[in-house]
Amino acid sequence: MDLKQYVTIVEDWPKPGIRFKDITSLMDNGTAYKYATDQIVEYAKTVNAEIIVGPEARGFIIGCPVAYALEIGFAPVRKEGKLPREVIRAEYGLEYGKDVLTMHKDAIKPGQRVLITDDLLATGGTIGATINLVEQLGGVVVGCAFLIELTYLDGRKNLDGYDVNTLLKY
Amino acid sequence: MDLKQYVTIVEDWPKPGIRFKDITSLMDNGTAYKYATDQIVEYAKTVNAEIIVGPEARGFIIGCPVAYALEIGFAPVRKEGKLPREVIRAEYGLEYGKDVLTMHKDAIKPGQRVLITDDLLATGGTIGATINLVEQLGGVVVGCAFLIELTYLDGRKNLDGYDVNTLLKY
Repeated sequence: MDLKQYVTIVEDWPKPGIRFKDITSLMDNGTAYKYATDQIVEYAKTVNAEIIVGPEARGFIIGCPVAYALEIGFAPVRKEGKLPREVIRAEYGLEYGKDVLTMHKDAIKPGQRVLITDDLLATGGTIGATINLVEQLGGVVVGCAFLIELTYLDGRKNLDGYDVNTLLKY
Repeated sequence: MDLKQYVTIVEDWPKPGIRFKDITSLMDNGTAYKYATDQIVEYAKTVNAEIIVGPEARGFIIGCPVAYALEIGFAPVRKEGKLPREVIRAEYGLEYGKDVLTMHKDAIKPGQRVLITDDLLATGGTIGATINLVEQLGGVVVGCAFLIELTYLDGRKNLDGYDVNTLLKY
């Protein structure tokens, strides 16, 4: 199945010169969405993932069905102020300034094998912060899975030493 | 399976007097998360849902695995400025002021049978706006499914005429 035909390229969004890869058209098609998810499920099995971690909101779209299919847990990574109990924090750089991601302190057990999921690997900033959170809690990042990789942004360089799996490359 | 034992009650969050129902502890347990999702999948079958619609971000957590299990599409409802293509809008009231939810104009086909999902039914404001969006596109709301219902807020009153299914009542 050629999944790329279900991804919509949106010109000049969110700003001029950007060719945004919109996965909502892929998710809108049940066959394509299941096919894509099942490939990440297979990858999750090869790395023996025990729990899925994903940053809001598109990391939920990919990671939650994978957790469901494997009957394992899903731990959300969210912006500051969104999680109700005691959290740990990780900062990451944006084009201008910084942002913060958080995770519940009891979301991961020490030694637990964690697969991180998101829709798209760009520069790897969000995923770097997510890895930082998982490792603060003693989790072992056994892999990072993405639907899409923007190879020209070389995000893998920032995830050196981690296993990275992507379905569609641009 | 008694799912309530996996929900964490967080006192005084997000403000004094609120007893917040935190579902992240339920999702953290693969067996509980799958069990809860499977009940919504069974409900989705009884109403012959053809697509799942959920508001960000917790509506994704419930709805995406249901879409995956049934091999049907999932259409996200997001805050303004988050969806990259042409959208329709619906306003809804907050305690102070208004907020806006959006959906891609091509997310639903006219006549398509839509199941709306979210984690929690409180006053029904978000879901009312989501129903409005689906109906603007000609979709047929065949049901609304929630993990949790806060019965004392009487959200069902605002969803009069729609089929509402909830797993846990408080």
